[in-house]
Amino acid sequence: MQTTYPDATTESINAALQEAHIAFLSYKNFSNKKKAEFLSAIADEIEALDQILVSTAMRETNLPEARIVNERGRTTGHCRMFATLVEEGSWVEARVDTALPNRMPAPKPDIRKMLVPIGPVVVFGAANFPLAYSTAGGDTISALAAGCPVIVKAHPAHPETSGLVAVAIKKAIEKCGLPGGVFQHLYGVGFQVGQSLVKHPLTKAVGFTGSLAGGKALFDLANQRPEPIPVFAEMSSINPVILLPESLSRNFEKTAASLAASITLGVGQFCTNPGLILAVEGTGLVKFMEFLGNEIQKAMPGTMLHQGIADNYAKKLAQALAQKGVTIEGQSSATGTTAQGKPLVASVLAESFIKNPTLAEEVFGPFSLIVKCKSLDELNTVANRMQGQLTASVFGEEGEISNCSSLMNVLVEKAGRLIINGVPTGVEVCPSMQHGGPFPATTDSRFSAVGTDAIRRFSRPVAFQNFPDSLLPDELKESNPLAIWRLYNGVWNKK
Amino acid sequence: MQTTYPDATTESINAALQEAHIAFLSYKNFSNKKKAEFLSAIADEIEALDQILVSTAMRETNLPEARIVNERGRTTGHCRMFATLVEEGSWVEARVDTALPNRMPAPKPDIRKMLVPIGPVVVFGAANFPLAYSTAGGDTISALAAGCPVIVKAHPAHPETSGLVAVAIKKAIEKCGLPGGVFQHLYGVGFQVGQSLVKHPLTKAVGFTGSLAGGKALFDLANQRPEPIPVFAEMSSINPVILLPESLSRNFEKTAASLAASITLGVGQFCTNPGLILAVEGTGLVKFMEFLGNEIQKAMPGTMLHQGIADNYAKKLAQALAQKGVTIEGQSSATGTTAQGKPLVASVLAESFIKNPTLAEEVFGPFSLIVKCKSLDELNTVANRMQGQLTASVFGEEGEISNCSSLMNVLVEKAGRLIINGVPTGVEVCPSMQHGGPFPATTDSRFSAVGTDAIRRFSRPVAFQNFPDSLLPDELKESNPLAIWRLYNGVWNKK
Repeated sequence: MQTTYPDATTESINAALQEAHIAFLSYKNFSNKKKAEFLSAIADEIEALDQILVSTAMRETNLPEARIVNERGRTTGHCRMFATLVEEGSWVEARVDTALPNRMPAPKPDIRKMLVPIGPVVVFGAANFPLAYSTAGGDTISALAAGCPVIVKAHPAHPETSGLVAVAIKKAIEKCGLPGGVFQHLYGVGFQVGQSLVKHPLTKAVGFTGSLAGGKALFDLANQRPEPIPVFAEMSSINPVILLPESLSRNFEKTAASLAASITLGVGQFCTNPGLILAVEGTGLVKFMEFLGNEIQKAMPGTMLHQGIADNYAKKLAQALAQKGVTIEGQSSATGTTAQGKPLVASVLAESFIKNPTLAEEVFGPFSLIVKCKSLDELNTVANRMQGQLTASVFGEEGEISNCSSLMNVLVEKAGRLIINGVPTGVEVCPSMQHGGPFPATTDSRFSAVGTDAIRRFSRPVAFQNFPDSLLPDELKESNPLAIWRLYNGVWNKK
Repeated sequence: MQTTYPDATTESINAALQEAHIAFLSYKNFSNKKKAEFLSAIADEIEALDQILVSTAMRETNLPEARIVNERGRTTGHCRMFATLVEEGSWVEARVDTALPNRMPAPKPDIRKMLVPIGPVVVFGAANFPLAYSTAGGDTISALAAGCPVIVKAHPAHPETSGLVAVAIKKAIEKCGLPGGVFQHLYGVGFQVGQSLVKHPLTKAVGFTGSLAGGKALFDLANQRPEPIPVFAEMSSINPVILLPESLSRNFEKTAASLAASITLGVGQFCTNPGLILAVEGTGLVKFMEFLGNEIQKAMPGTMLHQGIADNYAKKLAQALAQKGVTIEGQSSATGTTAQGKPLVASVLAESFIKNPTLAEEVFGPFSLIVKCKSLDELNTVANRMQGQLTASVFGEEGEISNCSSLMNVLVEKAGRLIINGVPTGVEVCPSMQHGGPFPATTDSRFSAVGTDAIRRFSRPVAFQNFPDSLLPDELKESNPLAIWRLYNGVWNKK
């Protein structure tokens, strides 16, 4: 097993992109069936790694076995989900408008449109999902499904895990007889490798999950290129949870228990961790805070993904607690080590929160801040001033939510996913999932990083006008040989 | 009639965005039927302007009556097309995944997703389409259809026409009882107004059609905001036309005639004007150039949209002709004035073209450059090095196109619309149209500025998790009260 991971050189980066570009020109034309076989083969090869993958990932990330096994299931799950999607074929959103040669004043030509892959994609593995958002993560697999070659820059926190998965993908490439440039894997600890990959003229899109600073830097770099390219960066979200008074006064205990579990899940290292709780002052809130404080006190510190994340948590937590008006409402009674994240919840008055933007910054780890509002009006004001989020949750009775229409109206503008009576952690992988919200949650709220629609990020539409049938892609041929859903002269059908 | 058009002040810009934001929070929730009524009413009010609109537009743009009447039809046509689209409702791409409460290891929640409007949109009217891409143009109407308020900055070249259309839209707003902030109209001759509009924190997207310099400046400005926003700028394209040898040797006369018409149409002031012709040297090409030269010689100069465009054409044309190896193959025999664009075609050897990027710059007007290639291989090399384009056309026999698979494979990467045996001018407004290509043709090749899919530019998906049916938008309610197409548990239906 490789134990050192030297940074990719300028030459190897250039060679990788050249190879990816050449592979692209053939890979994009492989049949849907072939691409589906490849994606399924990746799942098979990841499973074949068996216990070595689990133990390596555990060692490199400090995550427990159950979590890694679960995450492996999620990874092979999305490989097979995209295999099914690609084999079925309707994802290309085919539209057909047939000619009207006798139309006046001018004839209407035959035009047909479909999505095509965008080109070589650079993916930055995420630290917090060493399998599901790393080497064979959602970005990589959705890009491969779209027909784009992928170059992964391994996350430095789990190089060996990343390397194992890369070998699995390479085996799948061989098994399916695909060009080697369809998937490549590079190492790079500093910024240099990532920057060179994003700046390379043959790179056509970027996938990233990580910090706001990192994602924004890549976004800026990509936009400053002679040819700007899209960057899909999932960055920073504090996932506000709003507790409405009527429900809170009845369900404070249950709500506190589910939020405590969500805050501490995976040592708080989820992009959907509930970092902000908004509620109106009253006995319901007092009891809720007491219960939540107790739950957090009982929670154990956990070893974080790597020392950098633990240090950052300690620093950001200290910064939050040092702000004016912030009171600790409960913290883990165990001491913990410097490598561990210690669960903690604090509170602050809404008027202080509104004045102090530092309090709205993400504290990546098992922390949440309760914002105590004097009234629903003040809660609305806080919601109105929030930045973009991945999610927003509302705990409330159906009737009282219905009475908060202006609040709900604003939340739609603030988040990519709204949840009623549920915590934000737990991101379902399905067609209706939206994992992406207004900036700074992501760089592009129009796309999702999770679920089948993630494939759209790596595609663009092309129209074919006046093409003889034999020269059209199968998706657009008159007889619809792939039997996909198409908008044919304005009517959806599979004919 | 207003005769001076003072620039909008900082205060009026801020007031406009505040009003747009407030209007957004109610307009987005108006029913599909109401929005459709509004879009139809805009068409009615534009028609009610009758001859005054036609004569004003003719006077301000120097375009002939037939063209303005035709363009008015196109404008009211897209108003009614989007009215139909919005009333039908399926454009929101609803996805429904129902709950599986007993799923192991964790229950699956109910999740439903649809597109929602992105917020207030700033639209820059285009000079070359005073109706169809200006005040009530494709950007404005698709944004209003999505549920976004629009602020139009009138194009300084046709302020009176823009003002007339703005009044028509305001009348439609009154007729339908919508908030006034749904549509606002500002003037601004310098850069200041446009910059302030793009930088305003309440602006959520920008539509622009114009020069590369202008579009790129807005794109950069939007990306440098604290919260970056999407800019849909349609900028620069030379729309390469490739003439394959077999077809050319048979059809040189017909091909020359249709290209001459396309080059000179509207004094060449179309974004899809064929500015580049690629062909292999031989007798077919010699005869083609002779015929094309003759056609262009017979063509008359035409008064351009405004003096700035005429001056720019003269300057860019002189620059192109001054490049090494460029030979004039034909030019209008008429003298013309400095306000007119004089049709001209020139030629250059591929080896000179490849070396000189100046020759690939757009010359906005009735000009086209023929690139003479020694072989199909050299033609492939030229195609490979082209920048992104709105369109690419291939004139060829079915068999010879079929033999050029590597050329076709590359063209898909270079353009948003591929045309066989047809000129690029004439952009059909329909679901399968793609008007948008890789940079620098547009800033975002993933979206179209023409056709029903243009609505997508101004929307983003939002997922609703675990919502009681009564709190869901109608599009996502279990009974599907709007009877729209939905992906329901992975199956498309209208149930």
